[in-house]
Amino acid sequence: MKKPIVLINFKAYENSFGKKAVEMAKVIEGVSKDYSVDVIISVPATEIYRIAQEVSIPVYAEHVDAVDLGARTGAITVEMIKEAGAKGSLLNHSERRIRFDEIDDAVKKLRREGLESVVCVDRYTMVAPVGMIGPDAVLIEPPELIGTGISVSRAKPEVITKGVEEIRKTPGVELIAGAGISTGEDVYTAIKLGASGIGVASAVMKAKEPRKVVEDFVKSALRAIEEKGR
Amino acid sequence: MKKPIVLINFKAYENSFGKKAVEMAKVIEGVSKDYSVDVIISVPATEIYRIAQEVSIPVYAEHVDAVDLGARTGAITVEMIKEAGAKGSLLNHSERRIRFDEIDDAVKKLRREGLESVVCVDRYTMVAPVGMIGPDAVLIEPPELIGTGISVSRAKPEVITKGVEEIRKTPGVELIAGAGISTGEDVYTAIKLGASGIGVASAVMKAKEPRKVVEDFVKSALRAIEEKGR
Amino acid sequence: MKKPIVLINFKAYENSFGKKAVEMAKVIEGVSKDYSVDVIISVPATEIYRIAQEVSIPVYAEHVDAVDLGARTGAITVEMIKEAGAKGSLLNHSERRIRFDEIDDAVKKLRREGLESVVCVDRYTMVAPVGMIGPDAVLIEPPELIGTGISVSRAKPEVITKGVEEIRKTPGVELIAGAGISTGEDVYTAIKLGASGIGVASAVMKAKEPRKVVEDFVKSALRAIEEKGR
Amino acid sequence: MKKPIVLINFKAYENSFGKKAVEMAKVIEGVSKDYSVDVIISVPATEIYRIAQEVSIPVYAEHVDAVDLGARTGAITVEMIKEAGAKGSLLNHSERRIRFDEIDDAVKKLRREGLESVVCVDRYTMVAPVGMIGPDAVLIEPPELIGTGISVSRAKPEVITKGVEEIRKTPGVELIAGAGISTGEDVYTAIKLGASGIGVASAVMKAKEPRKVVEDFVKSALRAIEEKGR
Repeated sequence: MKKPIVLINFKAYENSFGKKAVEMAKVIEGVSKDYSVDVIISVPATEIYRIAQEVSIPVYAEHVDAVDLGARTGAITVEMIKEAGAKGSLLNHSERRIRFDEIDDAVKKLRREGLESVVCVDRYTMVAPVGMIGPDAVLIEPPELIGTGISVSRAKPEVITKGVEEIRKTPGVELIAGAGISTGEDVYTAIKLGASGIGVASAVMKAKEPRKVVEDFVKSALRAIEEKGR
Repeated sequence: MKKPIVLINFKAYENSFGKKAVEMAKVIEGVSKDYSVDVIISVPATEIYRIAQEVSIPVYAEHVDAVDLGARTGAITVEMIKEAGAKGSLLNHSERRIRFDEIDDAVKKLRREGLESVVCVDRYTMVAPVGMIGPDAVLIEPPELIGTGISVSRAKPEVITKGVEEIRKTPGVELIAGAGISTGEDVYTAIKLGASGIGVASAVMKAKEPRKVVEDFVKSALRAIEEKGR
Repeated sequence: MKKPIVLINFKAYENSFGKKAVEMAKVIEGVSKDYSVDVIISVPATEIYRIAQEVSIPVYAEHVDAVDLGARTGAITVEMIKEAGAKGSLLNHSERRIRFDEIDDAVKKLRREGLESVVCVDRYTMVAPVGMIGPDAVLIEPPELIGTGISVSRAKPEVITKGVEEIRKTPGVELIAGAGISTGEDVYTAIKLGASGIGVASAVMKAKEPRKVVEDFVKSALRAIEEKGR
Repeated sequence: MKKPIVLINFKAYENSFGKKAVEMAKVIEGVSKDYSVDVIISVPATEIYRIAQEVSIPVYAEHVDAVDLGARTGAITVEMIKEAGAKGSLLNHSERRIRFDEIDDAVKKLRREGLESVVCVDRYTMVAPVGMIGPDAVLIEPPELIGTGISVSRAKPEVITKGVEEIRKTPGVELIAGAGISTGEDVYTAIKLGASGIGVASAVMKAKEPRKVVEDFVKSALRAIEEKGR
């Protein structure tokens, strides 16, 4: 994954599907192109095809079922999201926890199909164990901060620094920080603390001017990455 | 729902998504038009939009989450499937069981949004209780026959006749019979035994000539309905 | 079930297990004997045997798995709770929801083994459907009031009256009212509104003087039953 | 944990509860004393108290809920199993899978309460990740062999050798091998391949002469440990 990683999770808001979701995706794509940063968006299963048709930024599923094709009514498989245009999937989000064997199955199947995987965890002690499974990235989010606007960068910077320490045990896996990220400063701090990028949802999805927010995030992320590179 | 009800559940086979699924939907639409019978297809969440764009027969979701919009990563809500073009949803399929309060929530939300609901049960004693919730139809399927090619019509006709007796306690709710349905004769028998229609999956999805199979089902269903109408 | 029904759910508080739980059971048994009312207690699976050895009032499980004996690590089956001394089980509590087919399986298996079943629901529209399954009683509890001390009797009396109306559709099944019940007056009102009894947890388990609370409940229940009987 | 580890999982057979379970526990205790080997038994939650009263060998729960005390109807907490006499718990058995965050919570809570934890996994790639969480042991069982009588030692020795390699990454955590173990030879081989012990269920629970079987297992385990020690 190209750094900085900026991942915007659409969740299930009223603008997370249909035309509003396509518009949001295009706004994000605009920023992505202007700054040459790959902003990833994760969208509901119903929206993958439509959005992937309309934008060139990476579209992820918000969840994928770790099962094979067959008589499985209601399953959303890796093959399905891939064919619909997804480039990867979020897994184990705190709003959609799965079992450890399912994480393992899904990460391996996504990889086999050439798709990326970002596995969410809620504590730094799970970073290395999940990293050993071999996803592209681990997204650490203290659940008590999700959607609060109180960012992990400010309120729990030690979660990021300890997560960064843990992720070093599994080379090739990136650490993404999330929960409550709402300003460019939050993004900057998270990356300076060692994260490869940030994950965000409400700060963008509920913004009056999403373009400005995403732009602020991307610029701050680039500034942090650049400073770290020196 | 217009009788006879013919519901084809795409499940998660290799031809249940992508271009093959669109082709299958078109084949079924062809038969639907030729015989003026509304054949319903239930498809994976990723496919609703694409298929609903291409065919005019009713497209259902295979499952829908009984939750409201909001911070719910990975949820597929009623609003989402509706916006994508779905006319209804299967619920509680034996391959995707949900809780009773979730069935109630989903049926009510689908109704509120003008969508239809077909709730699956695996035993006739659950027909009336589920019927009281007020879905458009209850689909009864002895799970041990699903996918076997040994039809409920032949192997367990009493499941249909008892189901028909039970559904009479909740006027306005139709009874659909399923599991192992594989020939026109199975369809004919199920409807003659009192069902308003049939549900099927593998017999169509795995057929070498799906058009012939669907045509046989539709013709047999029409013949049974007509005979009952006399 | 003998009326009035008074059901005390031990839940998982610090006095819900071990010696404190035995003591609590004995206190409740004392009231039960003094007033000749069968007070039912539902206790954690680990406590059934010990408590059933010590008291003669009916001991229920708080949950039971609707599965048969066999290779099922971690399952608590009907046979197990029966052998340990349980006289019945709560099912589908809002803190332990199960699927509708599991409710059906469990109710039938409990009956077959000579045990009672009390199925919890959170809305009056589910009273009759669940009643049709044939449990001994349906316990209706608006979940938003559970543990609040704001009783269903005062805050949502219509939930009880509508529940009572619904339960009449399934003769032989009792309606129990619960959620927030904390005074004798709450108990009295619930039964006067038509309930056959009440379910309670925190009001007893967290009481400084549980004996007084239970006594107040039992006396109020008896008074209400008597007045209804006139 | 003292080696060799011999863990007998009672599961939910007809002799896994009640007096038959107590008898079985006593038979196993007899062998344990004769050979001075700590044979661990994991039993249903309903049986912990009764069995722990009767035998001095370590009694485990088959599962424990990773939740705190409180309003949690139906939960079996660490505090409850401890008070009932358990010395530890199995976790994540293939018949009772839990989420990764639940494994982490349970392992930590068990440790805090002075209890042991044995976490089951179904593949060697999960041995080190789960080992990092810090349980006392990881029990590896290819689920397709469980209950078959075809032992992992014979059919899939590489699962053991790879598991042993993986567990070395997390010092202080033991590796136990399971699935299909049915003869002393299976036990001997598993330990010679590097396992610290074995887990077994049906071979003992369904045996006509359980004492002989357990004795054979224990003797073979001792012989293997002794040879490794040379």
